[in-house]
Amino acid sequence: MPTLNVHFLPVLTTPAALSGSTVVVIDVLRATTTIATALAAGATEVIPCLEVDEARQIAASLPPGKALLGGERGGKRIDGFDLGNSPAEYTPERLAGNTLVITTTNGTKALQTCLQASAVWLGALVNLTSVVRRIVGDPRIDILCAGTDGHISHEDVLTAGLFVHRILKAGRKQQIERMLGDGATIAHGFALARGRTESQRRACFASSRGGANLVELGYLSDIHDAVRIDAAPVAPRWDLATGRITAS
Amino acid sequence: MPTLNVHFLPVLTTPAALSGSTVVVIDVLRATTTIATALAAGATEVIPCLEVDEARQIAASLPPGKALLGGERGGKRIDGFDLGNSPAEYTPERLAGNTLVITTTNGTKALQTCLQASAVWLGALVNLTSVVRRIVGDPRIDILCAGTDGHISHEDVLTAGLFVHRILKAGRKQQIERMLGDGATIAHGFALARGRTESQRRACFASSRGGANLVELGYLSDIHDAVRIDAAPVAPRWDLATGRITAS
Repeated sequence: MPTLNVHFLPVLTTPAALSGSTVVVIDVLRATTTIATALAAGATEVIPCLEVDEARQIAASLPPGKALLGGERGGKRIDGFDLGNSPAEYTPERLAGNTLVITTTNGTKALQTCLQASAVWLGALVNLTSVVRRIVGDPRIDILCAGTDGHISHEDVLTAGLFVHRILKAGRKQQIERMLGDGATIAHGFALARGRTESQRRACFASSRGGANLVELGYLSDIHDAVRIDAAPVAPRWDLATGRITAS
Repeated sequence: MPTLNVHFLPVLTTPAALSGSTVVVIDVLRATTTIATALAAGATEVIPCLEVDEARQIAASLPPGKALLGGERGGKRIDGFDLGNSPAEYTPERLAGNTLVITTTNGTKALQTCLQASAVWLGALVNLTSVVRRIVGDPRIDILCAGTDGHISHEDVLTAGLFVHRILKAGRKQQIERMLGDGATIAHGFALARGRTESQRRACFASSRGGANLVELGYLSDIHDAVRIDAAPVAPRWDLATGRITAS
């Protein structure tokens, strides 16, 4: 029987356990939301990196005028970078035709757990339907929550739960029944209780450890942007061979 | 502000992080349910151990006729033990006035994470109200789910979520507001979606990895016993100095 699992943190699974599976990586505040927004705005590709210096070096190696540097440390834009980590900055005017080099700690670490996966997608609420449509028939789906600095983030789990809901719903139309892992069951129930409406999701995101930190830094509007389902209708796929993300 | 956290596995916290806190350990299928049932049935104390041989040695060191050996391996009663791990076996006829030496892998490992806690309680649905009543005013509460062999068990998380619900409700009457950690928010939402009625809880428990295994081994009635709120109204407390659990 096809399976559907949710892992609340990268450390709760292994590359071997994800081997051959379709993986959806979620870091909804804000990396995967921002990356989906950048691709929907016309970025040709996104190169995720762990370190600030690595991002600078990669950007410097690209044709001049074609690379944008994005990312944050402590929630704020990095000195000398073109963009921070607010989805609203990632407009077509700035992104169209460019390569985005983005540094994201939690999201990049999560990607490193997926090195043996058969396909790796980046999921957020802004691209929920686009990603679900691409994976709904796959036999094994694992949703991997990035968390925040090694702690479970309830906004990632809520987002994962809405993926579970949509995957099950779309699957039923195709008569696909799935065996749910315990993490998927928890995320699904949590999302039904706290994530049905946009205002519920805003309240939920703003109350998480990471969300409260964003509110404190003045980024409440990023939370409002992150809870908008299908606002950036692309399916970002991470190519394991090149390490680049494109809208597939 | 008083806090309330839920940890989905012992490995997701540390003894230092639980230092000075009130901890509720949950291993609802079946260790904490069975231990609460044993104490409600009149056992004078319960000695939890990790290993079968250790349990045999401790039982042999107690006055003859006063010690009962309980526990399971692979879900089944251990050769030569008096009792398995089904709450229904733990009757007043067998337990009253006796010491129970019980071997439980996941529950005992969870207790070892609590060595610096200020108080350690064993929680299950059968003793929900009794435990909540004892801890509701404590400034820091951490609920620790034992999980199953290193995997998150959704039945433990659901039980934790019902503890969160009751602690918040009882706290409001005493005008105690609590800051919830992300794990507590997830567990609470999950419990509201899937754990409100006894039949919901039965279905939820039976569909977990551990629950499905019990059903397969013929222990469906243990699940029915485990979802009965307040069926064993005692508050089992683990004494960190002696390693023994008594009804406090």
